[in-house]
Amino acid sequence: MLQIRLKQAAAEVQTHLDTVMNDFTDVPVVEAMRYASAGGKRLRAFLVLEGARLHDVPRENAIWPAAAIEAIHAYSLMHDDLPCMDDDELRRGLPTVHVKWDEATAVLAGDALQTLGFECVTCPECHADPQVRAELALTLARAAGARGMVLGQARDIAAEKAQNALTLDQITALQAGKTGALFEWSAQCGARMAGADPAPERAFATALGLAFQIADDILDVEGDAEKAGKRLQKDADAGKATFVSLLGLDGAKARAQELSEAACDSLAPYGSQADTLRDAARFVIARDN
Amino acid sequence: MLQIRLKQAAAEVQTHLDTVMNDFTDVPVVEAMRYASAGGKRLRAFLVLEGARLHDVPRENAIWPAAAIEAIHAYSLMHDDLPCMDDDELRRGLPTVHVKWDEATAVLAGDALQTLGFECVTCPECHADPQVRAELALTLARAAGARGMVLGQARDIAAEKAQNALTLDQITALQAGKTGALFEWSAQCGARMAGADPAPERAFATALGLAFQIADDILDVEGDAEKAGKRLQKDADAGKATFVSLLGLDGAKARAQELSEAACDSLAPYGSQADTLRDAARFVIARDN
Repeated sequence: MLQIRLKQAAAEVQTHLDTVMNDFTDVPVVEAMRYASAGGKRLRAFLVLEGARLHDVPRENAIWPAAAIEAIHAYSLMHDDLPCMDDDELRRGLPTVHVKWDEATAVLAGDALQTLGFECVTCPECHADPQVRAELALTLARAAGARGMVLGQARDIAAEKAQNALTLDQITALQAGKTGALFEWSAQCGARMAGADPAPERAFATALGLAFQIADDILDVEGDAEKAGKRLQKDADAGKATFVSLLGLDGAKARAQELSEAACDSLAPYGSQADTLRDAARFVIARDN
Repeated sequence: MLQIRLKQAAAEVQTHLDTVMNDFTDVPVVEAMRYASAGGKRLRAFLVLEGARLHDVPRENAIWPAAAIEAIHAYSLMHDDLPCMDDDELRRGLPTVHVKWDEATAVLAGDALQTLGFECVTCPECHADPQVRAELALTLARAAGARGMVLGQARDIAAEKAQNALTLDQITALQAGKTGALFEWSAQCGARMAGADPAPERAFATALGLAFQIADDILDVEGDAEKAGKRLQKDADAGKATFVSLLGLDGAKARAQELSEAACDSLAPYGSQADTLRDAARFVIARDN
């Protein structure tokens, strides 16, 4: 069921992003937006759509925040890959935007993908109630900006320059911003659209995001670059502290397992209806890409 | 009156942006956000605040979109100044962010300033009615993204690489995105917040934006780099078509004058209440920076 629903979410969000960008003027920046927002696991879109399912939010509404979060995620990857940031030439097995086009195109296409995210959550098709649209946009801004994702990235850059390696608490805080904030926003969307309390989803996503990141660190050490579709062992090469360097490989695996279980438990209020989300929490620590 | 109100708008928006960013974590990216969002003419904030005055929108509400548009404007300048874009080392008479810090900081701080813009227009303090907040965010996204400002920048980059110089119509379309879209959004804010028809303000800002850009092209040829606080004669050096190269210096001045007058006329429905905005339309074609 999980794999079917992940594929379904990926296909639907792809179609939706294509439709939204269909009337954009054909310039290289827009081509790059389409290119970089294609593919990927679409885990964040899946979280939005599954959260919406739990609260009976119509799919044709929930697809808007699902597309929004994937646009935001794609922008963050595109800027992360820039030569002045991680300097990556490969993403999802394909040349990164600044390699295929140039840096200026990658900067601008990323900028416009961020903007597109806010367009998607505030358009009337997203939700009939403007209160919900305004809340989705406000919470998305808090999750994506200098209080959330960008703060995590800024701390990551600061850590690379610092003399002392990060502690476990510091890495946890860094990742809560870098990965956790968007996961949390995605998982809470459905509840927010239904006017329900998103607390169970928030707890789920906090644990899931951290488990995901620990799994990423494990994958960086143990993974296969071809399957992952990107360069691996970057952190070890850079001498960066990671969950693996701090906890050891076995310790990191045990911690990821604990977090995955905690994520599953936090969905208790939804009973078996949340089983696909629980499967996702098991999947993120077992994936090979 | 114009100079007093411009200064007042600049001071108030500065205080407001400082307050909004006050509880942000102190990392270099946040320092760079503060640095790059300080100073400038604050013309867009002024347009928001004057439009709000015309419609009796309380200043404590209107300051939010005023801060938002200056955050968006500051982000676009920061990314424009990057080595892969215009490669400028001076902005408002000070070193640009990538010179003072580094490129990664400039990319991230710009990203977070864009996000901050959306946070400012969707927070409940901006407007009691969520319909208005959602509309401000949606229209801001359309103005700033691949339908507006970024499209203009993308066309600008494409033009630099093209074999043939742009025609007058093409430059006009390019500038309508690059400069016009944010001017139009700013001027219409007050009417939108009051639930009034923003058509007069839109017509005003379309003409104002184009007049502003023609004046910029004239300044690029005739201006004093010290007063302007940035490098001049960039376009001529780059062999780019500009309003001056297409219309001649006198032709460009005449066109700017016509547009400034058309901008003033479009505010007829507001009578003398809009005189400060009219003064602004005269000011933008007479400024030396």
